[in-house]
Amino acid sequence: MPRVSQDHLDARRRQILDGARSCFARHGYEGATVRRLEEATGLSRGAIFHHFRDKESLFLALAEDDALRMADVVAEQGLVQVMRDLLDEPEKREEEHAADWLGTRLEVSRRLRTDPDFRARWAERSEQLTAATRQRLIRQREAGNLRDDVDVTVLTNFLELVLEGLVSHLAMGLPADDMEPVLDLVEETVRRHRRRS
Amino acid sequence: MPRVSQDHLDARRRQILDGARSCFARHGYEGATVRRLEEATGLSRGAIFHHFRDKESLFLALAEDDALRMADVVAEQGLVQVMRDLLDEPEKREEEHAADWLGTRLEVSRRLRTDPDFRARWAERSEQLTAATRQRLIRQREAGNLRDDVDVTVLTNFLELVLEGLVSHLAMGLPADDMEPVLDLVEETVRRHRRRS
Repeated sequence: MPRVSQDHLDARRRQILDGARSCFARHGYEGATVRRLEEATGLSRGAIFHHFRDKESLFLALAEDDALRMADVVAEQGLVQVMRDLLDEPEKREEEHAADWLGTRLEVSRRLRTDPDFRARWAERSEQLTAATRQRLIRQREAGNLRDDVDVTVLTNFLELVLEGLVSHLAMGLPADDMEPVLDLVEETVRRHRRRS
Repeated sequence: MPRVSQDHLDARRRQILDGARSCFARHGYEGATVRRLEEATGLSRGAIFHHFRDKESLFLALAEDDALRMADVVAEQGLVQVMRDLLDEPEKREEEHAADWLGTRLEVSRRLRTDPDFRARWAERSEQLTAATRQRLIRQREAGNLRDDVDVTVLTNFLELVLEGLVSHLAMGLPADDMEPVLDLVEETVRRHRRRS
């Protein structure tokens, strides 16, 4: 049997995650049957579960993958920019799986509420985004761009709360076009207050 | 057959809604079987579906009931107070079904995402809260308590977005104790800015 290269393994893993993402988003966790996962990924159940132990592990890997990608954007551009990206160009979003990402995120929310085992497994994986947001805010404060009368922890929690609300809002299919001025307000709230002349 | 009084009908309806609320919150919409609804309400399926055409109608009535009760609090005390009530005294919340209310709300979110028919039926029923919030903000602006450099519509959307985030946060079982200063920040953001002396 020939040895399979790491590149090939990574590409296959990516193929499974991308297919599974749209499958979970469309059908929900329970509705994403093995048969549907096969259709969505274009791979057999044998191939899928060679890479991921079971459906639960696949879903967790997917949610973790999304959180890491978001943390990268946060580190470069901040959490408000992540939110703006979610609003921009719905067509483009679809292509880049951000719409699916919303579905994954809401499914995480629902399972955290109804499934204590999942909650324990997820807790280990959900720290990256908070850490990235916090680090970014600390750098912004050092650069003099952040208000200095409110603790960085409170500002981090505030931004994460708004993000959670936005994810929920978009996932419910509510209109995105009136959210841009709301995000302006959110950004202004964490920025340093300039004296009005 | 004796005529049943309106009071009796109302009390029975309330009994069904309260039982169903905890049942939907615990098991989710799909998991709330007719048998479980019977157990949770202490009534037979005949009695339950005498008052509500089907499970879908029962769930919609419940969600509408919650939205109306929230709108009452908003009219009296504002949307930030609704959020503070959600944080206060978890033991008390449990008694008053606010924890269940969270479950209902998250279940609404999920079904809005996955079920277009539900989305259409819910749209007609979800206007009360927005209207109550908007009316309250207009009165606050007239009283000089609201900032006047941002449109009331934007402030309404901002508060609803934060509420949605808070519901999601609490429903996921995340800690509530660090949210109080975040709500202070939210309240300050919509208030009139006093000149700093």
